[in-house]
Amino acid sequence: MRIAVDALGGDHAPHAIVAGALDAARESNFTVVLVGPKASLSPLLKSEGLAGRIEIVDATEVITNDDAPSMAVRRKTNSTIVVAANLLRTGQVDAVVTAGNTGAFMAAGLFIVGRIKSIDRPALAPLIPTRQGRGVVLLDAGANMDSKPENLLQYGIMGSIYASQVLRRDNPKVALLNVGTEESKGNQVTKEAYHLLKSADIDFVGNIEARELLHGEVDVVVCDGFTGNVLLKALEGMAHTFSAMLKEHFLRDLRSKIGALLLRPSLRGFKKQFDYAEYGGAPLLGINGVLVKCHGSSQQVAIKNGVLQAARFVERGVVHNIQRAVAELPPKEKG
Amino acid sequence: MRIAVDALGGDHAPHAIVAGALDAARESNFTVVLVGPKASLSPLLKSEGLAGRIEIVDATEVITNDDAPSMAVRRKTNSTIVVAANLLRTGQVDAVVTAGNTGAFMAAGLFIVGRIKSIDRPALAPLIPTRQGRGVVLLDAGANMDSKPENLLQYGIMGSIYASQVLRRDNPKVALLNVGTEESKGNQVTKEAYHLLKSADIDFVGNIEARELLHGEVDVVVCDGFTGNVLLKALEGMAHTFSAMLKEHFLRDLRSKIGALLLRPSLRGFKKQFDYAEYGGAPLLGINGVLVKCHGSSQQVAIKNGVLQAARFVERGVVHNIQRAVAELPPKEKG
Repeated sequence: MRIAVDALGGDHAPHAIVAGALDAARESNFTVVLVGPKASLSPLLKSEGLAGRIEIVDATEVITNDDAPSMAVRRKTNSTIVVAANLLRTGQVDAVVTAGNTGAFMAAGLFIVGRIKSIDRPALAPLIPTRQGRGVVLLDAGANMDSKPENLLQYGIMGSIYASQVLRRDNPKVALLNVGTEESKGNQVTKEAYHLLKSADIDFVGNIEARELLHGEVDVVVCDGFTGNVLLKALEGMAHTFSAMLKEHFLRDLRSKIGALLLRPSLRGFKKQFDYAEYGGAPLLGINGVLVKCHGSSQQVAIKNGVLQAARFVERGVVHNIQRAVAELPPKEKG
Repeated sequence: MRIAVDALGGDHAPHAIVAGALDAARESNFTVVLVGPKASLSPLLKSEGLAGRIEIVDATEVITNDDAPSMAVRRKTNSTIVVAANLLRTGQVDAVVTAGNTGAFMAAGLFIVGRIKSIDRPALAPLIPTRQGRGVVLLDAGANMDSKPENLLQYGIMGSIYASQVLRRDNPKVALLNVGTEESKGNQVTKEAYHLLKSADIDFVGNIEARELLHGEVDVVVCDGFTGNVLLKALEGMAHTFSAMLKEHFLRDLRSKIGALLLRPSLRGFKKQFDYAEYGGAPLLGINGVLVKCHGSSQQVAIKNGVLQAARFVERGVVHNIQRAVAELPPKEKG
């Protein structure tokens, strides 16, 4: 197995990326293909002793967060993400991991690697931190802006396979994001999607509201990409705002500082629990290959986890399993 | 001026509701009309000395959160919210305030009081707590599930009038909730709404992402009711989850408890800042009368603020001003 890692993507590139990729190689048997400028990456690999399991594929351009994704993917043909996606398309690697521009990641997946046959739209599927449990898979978190009920059905099936085969959840519970729990709630798309999901061969548990999602009682939450993106950013924004405000209050005066010092051991796990960068990678499901997006602020450990996650995707044959599950769906009625 | 207050709506009814309504009457010159069971409300009003500025209109039924809203509004004709809405429709009061079932509140507004002419869809407009500033008006937070671009335009205009005339913001900044700041971002509805809002006679500042919203740099954020409802519940859920987890950590052991005790004065304002019940009422804009919904968990102060807010609506003639602003819009092209 060979996994390509975008050495220039993310806030802490290239050092944290390279270090995380090397850690993943050490814990496994696959080969890591670092995609980035050979000249500056080579010195970072000196005396790693990974005996041929680290390679570099030269790519000198980078797509930054200021680039317009689709345009950048077309024009920056020597960028790390485009070079990595081409390695995947031509079968030279089995998976691609990046912490770079999310839009470019999705565009490279869609336009270079391509969709799985009979998947109409791919979906970005990050893991949302929850109070209890191991997080919930949210899809689509923004790969497609206008979703049809049939797209949500496919998201439910893909999310269920991902949760069971990569995240190792037994019989993953799949819910539909909605404004209330009753079947009749929601907009036209969710009302129709409810019935499609109910008939699908997954453990569909009905509608879920955004605030219940954080309790961690379901494994997968399905929604259109616009709503999913707003939800993800709202949760992340609120977690960040809360942390920042708390910190301000902790430093307000001497009394508070002493209090905060006493609380430090107890609060150590707290901060980590809602740190989105800790929650590994978000796969782009529905693409004819394994693509995993790590959070832009990923450090070494998060990158290592993202690479190991990509390896599990490949081992379990998730792409093939999605292909098969979707092919088994009854044919769509023409509307 | 006469303002009806639903004495049976909300988690702390009737005591906190009655107490808050009386406080509002004390701080003002209007008459408060308590709508609820006369027999049990009368004893609560003994020796209030508000000299005729408190009345009771008898209503013995209550629509609970377990009732299906539209059905309950049709069937429970002697419920507090239906009786109050009828008082508004027939001009016996100038505004209605409730902390009860949100769905029933919206249904009563739409079906009993009715829409303003040329407003296609009303919008629920709560104030979202922000880190800096005085909160941001979010609309629609769930009155309508399927919005057209023209609805979002009307939300922007109504939100701007509300922010300026009731919340006293000078030249309120209006933004469109979206998945990115560029004009080309979003789904079909936001892409078209962007152009409509840009041409409207309001201070439209472009797209805003959910996480930026918490910085408090705009006054009004416009979105469809499905997304708005998800966003509101996500933010509220995250704030609640964060607080609950923090409390757990504070009580973990003796060392943490001492730390928490030292931090108490500093954290007092913190908790209040993200308490959604503190942020007054959410008006249902676009209805031919003033309806204000307070948070279900509202205590005395929040009810008082909601009633005073309703009074400001009436004083400023907001319903009339919305009517006029919308009538001035260029006629829609037939699609």
